[in-house]
Amino acid sequence: MLTEIITIGDEILIGQIVDSNSAWIAQKLNECGIRVKQITSVSDDRAHILEALNAASSRAEIVIMTGGLGPTKDDITKTTLAEYFNVGFKRDEATLANVSRIFERFKRPLLEANIRQADVPENCTVLLNANGTAPGMWFNHQEVTYVSLPGVPFEMMYLMEEEVLPRLKTQHQLDAIVHQTILTAGLGESFLAETISSIEDSLPSHIKLAYLPKLGQVRLRLSAYGGNEAELQTEINHYVDKIVRMLDKYVVATEDKPLEKAILDFMEERGLTLSVAESCTGGYLSHLLTQHAGSSSVFLGGGVTYSNDLKIKVLGVAPDTIDQFGAVSEETVKEMACGSLNKFNSQYAIAISGIAGPGGGTADKPVGTVWVAVAGQKRLVSKKFQFGSKRAQNIERSAINALILLFHILREDHC
Amino acid sequence: MLTEIITIGDEILIGQIVDSNSAWIAQKLNECGIRVKQITSVSDDRAHILEALNAASSRAEIVIMTGGLGPTKDDITKTTLAEYFNVGFKRDEATLANVSRIFERFKRPLLEANIRQADVPENCTVLLNANGTAPGMWFNHQEVTYVSLPGVPFEMMYLMEEEVLPRLKTQHQLDAIVHQTILTAGLGESFLAETISSIEDSLPSHIKLAYLPKLGQVRLRLSAYGGNEAELQTEINHYVDKIVRMLDKYVVATEDKPLEKAILDFMEERGLTLSVAESCTGGYLSHLLTQHAGSSSVFLGGGVTYSNDLKIKVLGVAPDTIDQFGAVSEETVKEMACGSLNKFNSQYAIAISGIAGPGGGTADKPVGTVWVAVAGQKRLVSKKFQFGSKRAQNIERSAINALILLFHILREDHC
Repeated sequence: MLTEIITIGDEILIGQIVDSNSAWIAQKLNECGIRVKQITSVSDDRAHILEALNAASSRAEIVIMTGGLGPTKDDITKTTLAEYFNVGFKRDEATLANVSRIFERFKRPLLEANIRQADVPENCTVLLNANGTAPGMWFNHQEVTYVSLPGVPFEMMYLMEEEVLPRLKTQHQLDAIVHQTILTAGLGESFLAETISSIEDSLPSHIKLAYLPKLGQVRLRLSAYGGNEAELQTEINHYVDKIVRMLDKYVVATEDKPLEKAILDFMEERGLTLSVAESCTGGYLSHLLTQHAGSSSVFLGGGVTYSNDLKIKVLGVAPDTIDQFGAVSEETVKEMACGSLNKFNSQYAIAISGIAGPGGGTADKPVGTVWVAVAGQKRLVSKKFQFGSKRAQNIERSAINALILLFHILREDHC
Repeated sequence: MLTEIITIGDEILIGQIVDSNSAWIAQKLNECGIRVKQITSVSDDRAHILEALNAASSRAEIVIMTGGLGPTKDDITKTTLAEYFNVGFKRDEATLANVSRIFERFKRPLLEANIRQADVPENCTVLLNANGTAPGMWFNHQEVTYVSLPGVPFEMMYLMEEEVLPRLKTQHQLDAIVHQTILTAGLGESFLAETISSIEDSLPSHIKLAYLPKLGQVRLRLSAYGGNEAELQTEINHYVDKIVRMLDKYVVATEDKPLEKAILDFMEERGLTLSVAESCTGGYLSHLLTQHAGSSSVFLGGGVTYSNDLKIKVLGVAPDTIDQFGAVSEETVKEMACGSLNKFNSQYAIAISGIAGPGGGTADKPVGTVWVAVAGQKRLVSKKFQFGSKRAQNIERSAINALILLFHILREDHC
């Protein structure tokens, strides 16, 4: 069962937005055993959309589109679909009622453009969008299923979960696919590959191994295709166990979760708490942690002590330390970590202070110089990193490397 | 001049990563007046890559690929390109020296797989990758330019900026494209469209207007194509002025920048400072602000006061207030804002407290209930929001709506 995803919108092709919809859709489809053959992004252009529909339907049995369903003149997906299927329009009363209800709730006048959102191609089944005014649309046409969804992520997600996935599961006999991911930290991609090459060479042809490196971490993804799902899972587990034994302390998790979530889970299982003191990462590390539901059982909070004044006031760093060694120094970052541990009453604390750039560098401490400290109740470890010149990367690398340092300390303390 | 972008990697098609490379590449190309016709994501599959190359080169004069250049067995872009061009391999000595240098720096042994990274198709011009081991490759073949880049974002970015864009500018006579964006906040998409419909109807055919709605904001993007760049800019400016006059206080910025950057710029111009007290947004608002270079001149820092204990200790919220009204209440969020203003010594402060979910909701305060307060030196404004059930969206909406509230107050106080 193959699907193609077509995302429609000039804003994608001029790079004004990152298309995160298709990754989300692909993930959900894969979980159901539906493989995505291709993802295609095209402009709000009639001829180009028609060409993409023709190409996709020649390769796949399901075509899922997002975007171009808004009320404004640049939204042409609906009229293009009517042309593609060679049908006229009908007014959908349930959609009209939904649109009216939404405008009433927000006390906005209902405009002609909004009313037209209830007009849909004659051959479609409407997927009612409780979160917005643009309806989802489902078409069965010459052995191919076409689904058109709004581009606004949470509207698309709602329709996928409530309408599209349940219908796909009902309509199709699905092949099994099983993925399993091993998250490793602290080993390079080629060294990893060399270490587990004997296992990789022994994999049967229906099991694939992929390496996904990212900022000090490498995800190993095993994918098994076809046949019985339970048997595939057993087979995959066998290889996962072998790899985990071989890589030992470099393994952070044996499922596909982010590093910070693996750490939160590790700490929650052991009843441990964490606080953070962030300077150059400016809240990014806290955000990484708190984006996960349930993080509050581990993460107590922290200080985004961007100014020196706040390092002193909030964390209790000695003014002399900053004067003598600077805000970006081993001494300051250690005091920040201890301050976080004591003031915020946690069992572990991370502190980060560095020069994210592009400004603020000196010959002595160039942009990308970052000090990280991890404090536990019995020890205080610090480490210096020298990253590059890009601000966003320096922020991300600082946070990830601080988490890796914390993970290694947690493992030593609690394994 | 048309380009197509092909991103290669199974991890994209199973949704394990979001392809942010293509948006970045598209943006850079557009700035140079090169339009992107299509973005295509395909798997690490020889036949599929060949098919995508054939299709792209039939529509575009430039094909830019990312991904599949690593040292491991699932990386097959290079061999597939050699097959596509029907050529053999050569060893590139500069690449080999670069790979050796990188392994020496990290004190890692040089493996056979790494040495093979220096083997490239005979017909390619190597684009030396100072940030990684996989070389970029440039091919001129039957009137089409093909560029193959690593999928690791910062390696790809380096090669685009240092090698690819300068070469494209030299090789091609480029058409002009001018984009200008107006960022609005607080007006719905269809109401905006109705308000400026007379201007939209009067646009000449070479100027397009697009609406890009996102979380309480709508970006209006005017794009002018062809001819002389300075003239296009003058024409666009004329329409931007008209639209800005019509939308007045809903206009946040007349360039394509994020809301928080527009606010930082507004505050920096007026010498104003900001601090934040975040509960349910857990550092996300601080991160939004501090991702921008120079934010430290406005943003002093803040508290991620996730636990009640930290709300009391760090912000000075009265324990009684939390006991009586709860952490998510008008009373608490106002004390958080005042605490942030006073303890962190800023001229404005934002406080956010809410139930991001999925847990923690009650009949009285369901998941998605969020209180925001903005404190200035002369006033304290609070507002309640009722969002939905999704954690990530609740965090994002809380932060964005808090920023919109701050912006309206700043405008009233300082315009």
